[in-house]
Amino acid sequence: MSETGKAKVIFQPSGRRGEVDKGINIVEASRQLGVDIETLCGEKKVCGKCKVRVEEGSFEKYGVVSGQDHVSPWQKEEEKFISPEQRASGYRLGCVAQVTGDLLLFVPEESRAGKQVVSKAARDIEIEWDPAVKLYTVTVTPPTFEDPLGDFERMTQALEKDHGLKNLSIDWYTLRKLPGTIREGEWTLTAAVWDEKEIIKLWPGKVEDYYGIGIDVGTTTIAAYLCNMRTMQVLETVSMMNPQCKYGEDVMARITFHMQNPGGLERMSNDLWEGLNDLVKKACEATHPPTRKQKDENGKSIKDEDGEFVIVESPEEGKTYLRLEPSDIVDVTLGGNTAMHHIMLKLDPQYVGLAPFPPVVHRSLDIRARDLGLNINPSSNVFIMPNEAGFVGADNVCVLISEKPYRSEELQLIIDIGTNGELVLGNKDKLISSSCATGPALEGAQLAFGMRAAPGAIERIKIDPETHDVDYKVIGREAWLKYSKPEEMKTKGICGSGILDVLAELYRSGVVAKSGRFSKDQKSNRFRKNPDNPRQKEFVIAWADETSIGKDVVITQKDIRQIQLAKGALYTGCKLMMRRMGVDKVDSIKIAGAFGTHVNREKALIMGLFPDCEVEKVLSVGNAAGDGARVALLDRKMRADANWVARNVEYIELTVEEDFEKQFMESMQIPHMTDEFPHLKGLVADEILHQK
Amino acid sequence: MSETGKAKVIFQPSGRRGEVDKGINIVEASRQLGVDIETLCGEKKVCGKCKVRVEEGSFEKYGVVSGQDHVSPWQKEEEKFISPEQRASGYRLGCVAQVTGDLLLFVPEESRAGKQVVSKAARDIEIEWDPAVKLYTVTVTPPTFEDPLGDFERMTQALEKDHGLKNLSIDWYTLRKLPGTIREGEWTLTAAVWDEKEIIKLWPGKVEDYYGIGIDVGTTTIAAYLCNMRTMQVLETVSMMNPQCKYGEDVMARITFHMQNPGGLERMSNDLWEGLNDLVKKACEATHPPTRKQKDENGKSIKDEDGEFVIVESPEEGKTYLRLEPSDIVDVTLGGNTAMHHIMLKLDPQYVGLAPFPPVVHRSLDIRARDLGLNINPSSNVFIMPNEAGFVGADNVCVLISEKPYRSEELQLIIDIGTNGELVLGNKDKLISSSCATGPALEGAQLAFGMRAAPGAIERIKIDPETHDVDYKVIGREAWLKYSKPEEMKTKGICGSGILDVLAELYRSGVVAKSGRFSKDQKSNRFRKNPDNPRQKEFVIAWADETSIGKDVVITQKDIRQIQLAKGALYTGCKLMMRRMGVDKVDSIKIAGAFGTHVNREKALIMGLFPDCEVEKVLSVGNAAGDGARVALLDRKMRADANWVARNVEYIELTVEEDFEKQFMESMQIPHMTDEFPHLKGLVADEILHQK
Repeated sequence: MSETGKAKVIFQPSGRRGEVDKGINIVEASRQLGVDIETLCGEKKVCGKCKVRVEEGSFEKYGVVSGQDHVSPWQKEEEKFISPEQRASGYRLGCVAQVTGDLLLFVPEESRAGKQVVSKAARDIEIEWDPAVKLYTVTVTPPTFEDPLGDFERMTQALEKDHGLKNLSIDWYTLRKLPGTIREGEWTLTAAVWDEKEIIKLWPGKVEDYYGIGIDVGTTTIAAYLCNMRTMQVLETVSMMNPQCKYGEDVMARITFHMQNPGGLERMSNDLWEGLNDLVKKACEATHPPTRKQKDENGKSIKDEDGEFVIVESPEEGKTYLRLEPSDIVDVTLGGNTAMHHIMLKLDPQYVGLAPFPPVVHRSLDIRARDLGLNINPSSNVFIMPNEAGFVGADNVCVLISEKPYRSEELQLIIDIGTNGELVLGNKDKLISSSCATGPALEGAQLAFGMRAAPGAIERIKIDPETHDVDYKVIGREAWLKYSKPEEMKTKGICGSGILDVLAELYRSGVVAKSGRFSKDQKSNRFRKNPDNPRQKEFVIAWADETSIGKDVVITQKDIRQIQLAKGALYTGCKLMMRRMGVDKVDSIKIAGAFGTHVNREKALIMGLFPDCEVEKVLSVGNAAGDGARVALLDRKMRADANWVARNVEYIELTVEEDFEKQFMESMQIPHMTDEFPHLKGLVADEILHQK
Repeated sequence: MSETGKAKVIFQPSGRRGEVDKGINIVEASRQLGVDIETLCGEKKVCGKCKVRVEEGSFEKYGVVSGQDHVSPWQKEEEKFISPEQRASGYRLGCVAQVTGDLLLFVPEESRAGKQVVSKAARDIEIEWDPAVKLYTVTVTPPTFEDPLGDFERMTQALEKDHGLKNLSIDWYTLRKLPGTIREGEWTLTAAVWDEKEIIKLWPGKVEDYYGIGIDVGTTTIAAYLCNMRTMQVLETVSMMNPQCKYGEDVMARITFHMQNPGGLERMSNDLWEGLNDLVKKACEATHPPTRKQKDENGKSIKDEDGEFVIVESPEEGKTYLRLEPSDIVDVTLGGNTAMHHIMLKLDPQYVGLAPFPPVVHRSLDIRARDLGLNINPSSNVFIMPNEAGFVGADNVCVLISEKPYRSEELQLIIDIGTNGELVLGNKDKLISSSCATGPALEGAQLAFGMRAAPGAIERIKIDPETHDVDYKVIGREAWLKYSKPEEMKTKGICGSGILDVLAELYRSGVVAKSGRFSKDQKSNRFRKNPDNPRQKEFVIAWADETSIGKDVVITQKDIRQIQLAKGALYTGCKLMMRRMGVDKVDSIKIAGAFGTHVNREKALIMGLFPDCEVEKVLSVGNAAGDGARVALLDRKMRADANWVARNVEYIELTVEEDFEKQFMESMQIPHMTDEFPHLKGLVADEILHQK
């Protein structure tokens, strides 16, 4: 069969269908048809997450030719992830198998890129009110033959006289609204002025409240804070998955996608802006009254002529609604790591991914919203936070202006653990930063049963040291296993915040030794050899009857190694930075990011994720990156701070530090030498700490 | 027949065809199908230029229903322009008759909006080199682990060190080219910097020559000057008709079109920018080698597989070609009167058309080319010249910075005669300006046989005082009638530059008296009553056998009145400004615009177009508005001058001046009191000057 032309593809269970070009792989086809398949590695054929089942047997009922080989031949890379049994029942890797004819495909639950439960609420932080965009109201006299001055000059003369604003310019899009607005307001109007320089929006009459959004673009999650810019109140916090996840889980996977796909950069960027438009809309819609289906006197929903339900507003009594629209948003600040920053702005990210990792630009940028395709007030400038160096980007700058270690006496270690880990160490005298490839393991990816923080994910666990029996709880269900019937758990896998819990418990209960290996002294039948791969050892966390995927959820020796690599990378980073700074202890540790919110700080200390510190001085600072975007939105002096600090943090490229590899090997052990961790003593029984 | 739905319309002789909505008028249908029909009055049913013939008899061969009335009923307004004979043969006014069914239409030659011969060549003027956009070349060292500074900061540090440029920003579109360009040039690159502030274009390696365009958007004609911005040389002068002419000939007609048609402003603006894109492309294409059809050894043109001729470049030997593309254009300056300015920028022009005529904005604007839809270097800013007041707009500012009366000792009167007349009087001590509604009569419109300066238009004339016999020449033919066979003349009408010649000759030969009336003493059969309207008197300039339109070209009493109104408006303006200034004579008169280039200054004085002045001190300064656009392109100090002078010229609204109407009535006479015109004496025989 020819590989040119079109093929009809149907994805089950979503039922999405359409025509695609023959020759593309199944993952690409899923994107084109709007089906999200996990591709953690960016289609490098190494994560095995994109398994799909080719449903050849079901073909005929869809009226397409059956019994043909409509995908490209089996490849050696697939053997690693697909067992002979699975292969026999039609499984393939979506990034390997190409569409060569009409196809019906089934996407198993574990391959679906599910809706994540995100937790990025706004914290109370102190911000001084001095936004880049401010409102000014003026009343002018109408023109006469004696004074036929034009509308713009008439307005700006009043803005200078009443508010001391000199040499104001105006964006063309806003200028076009001027003659209508000034007359609609009967010669009184309100102007939004950006940076005391340019008029970017006009309203007839007097207006006082106005609105802006601070956005934190994470590799995996995007959070946005809708603020009243007069009161500084956070009206709504909304979040979503980064739509680029389908191009690869981590930053290197996305850079690779760009380098291997012409137009890939534009596609990733456009997907992001489309997503941000949805997010802004979602934030604005939250300020409208809720809606419901209109009912008749019998309580039956009414349909209109087209058979659609009639939707009516259903405001709560006594409550007023702002009814904001995206065009009401007059200012936006945006932060993200250097790779997200570059991809978002369609700046070639390949060099920031190659030694010596120079970014295209450090300094902050003001880019017109309409140029970016962000559907807010079109004249508004989007403030893009500055980058530091390497992958330590605008998101870390957000953390810095939120936490302000550069004004602190105390020596702080700030750890922002996302898919990429960013570290800052220092105080008002000196600040150093670095990034470490923690990889997605700490977020649950690249593990046999790793998954995102979605319903069914194991998030807490306890293991009995005597019997090695397991109790746990999953996201979306309050009750632990002990208080549930097995079939009520509907377990699917282990999420990021659960993974440290699992490992700490495995260690504390003696299932795993200090080296990370399974210990010899196993007390249950949960420890076993993998049935398909006897050389791989594993420990069963949840039995098949507790799951919704019909198989045992296990943690393998390889999984433990992955987590050790991640925590080793993080700890090595902290240690090398302390060495560079010439200190052997820090005064406090701040953990930013969603990981910080969920992680149990004691278990993180047990696992040796970061240097020893009093447990009380280990603080979760929530989504500090998002807070920083909000700070820059409401206080323009912090934009100057951001540019200053971005150029005054000394960046350290860890991988070229002396004895990096030796340090890294040592850091993988659980836990570290006790003399390095005096505060651990109370947390872990001595006999466990000293077991071999 | 229903007036909803679609109708098929075919225009002959062009053969353009297509479907239009029923209910629209024929002029609108012509626009939609790309046929240019003259509509000098903006569809106000008063110019009668849009006559078309409904070809009902020819219907059947086009396969549409015949014998039906497929246009809306006859209207009283049409009687004024369409004789009973014409009506019988199917003539209708295109702005009156609506399409109610399928139609075949014939557009007579005189109704076609022909291709105009424009004469807007660049003059040699003195300009100081200080453009807003300048080029700078720098070489930087590549990044290392010790110095991993980003591309942008690396470049700007070098620009500061080597060229003293501080705090440079960069447009996002240009930033996106930076990583590729800096590496392509092996760490040497050239940056175009706008106003010493922003980087707007980058080239790998060293570049010295760069290019800009100055554009003068006239109501009727647009001229553009492509310049080498290093050498200041004008490489190409190109011009075109303003594509908005189809919406109305003068500024008020276009403002009316905007007010009566939702979306009309956007349409007129978009048509203009589309036209400007064509003009820029045309200017750039002139820098490519000419092309020719490729021939085989027998001299036969070769066709390709698709049957198209193979086109090859045919450069002249020894000549080098710049091969510029629109994206090579890095700066543009634009001038136009206030109405053109507003319509171009989609600024509501209704208020500038209503007393007290305030514009939306006076000051100059810098608008990103991509925002305007101008397809040049997308990061470039288009400099829009400032407006003065009323209709005296950015084009007059261009004239002022080109002629610089504000630096002159001499009292100058500068007259820019286009469809709208703009006047400036003054010197370095004081400048006043005003505009007068000369209307299109001086450009040949609104006259029985007026037409644009296109082939077949009478441009020069001589009338024998003894016999009243006429000799003349037409555009596109060197020989006068006297030296031609009548059928060689192919006369069509009288163009703007010919109209004054005609009237001056009619007067000098005694055909017309000082009052503007035909004199009693007629010496030829050329003077007659109009056959269709015996109350209208007319004088035959060209007999039917000398024309390509098959009928006598005449000038009517009404035509003469039109020209008297125009010249009266102009002269009144000059006189009232002199009164306001407290002077009774001027040192020099400068006539700008295409009219000034073609007009015979002696005849203009005879007609009393402007105040008396030594003939030698009456100067044509060509397209000074276009020159001013060029000045602002090459010397940014002149942009400051433009903003200064725009706010320091005192604008006078003539129509509200005391005894305006009395002055206007007096000014319509030809010529004026001899004591007002001492310099006329040598030009006109005394006996004629004093005849009643």
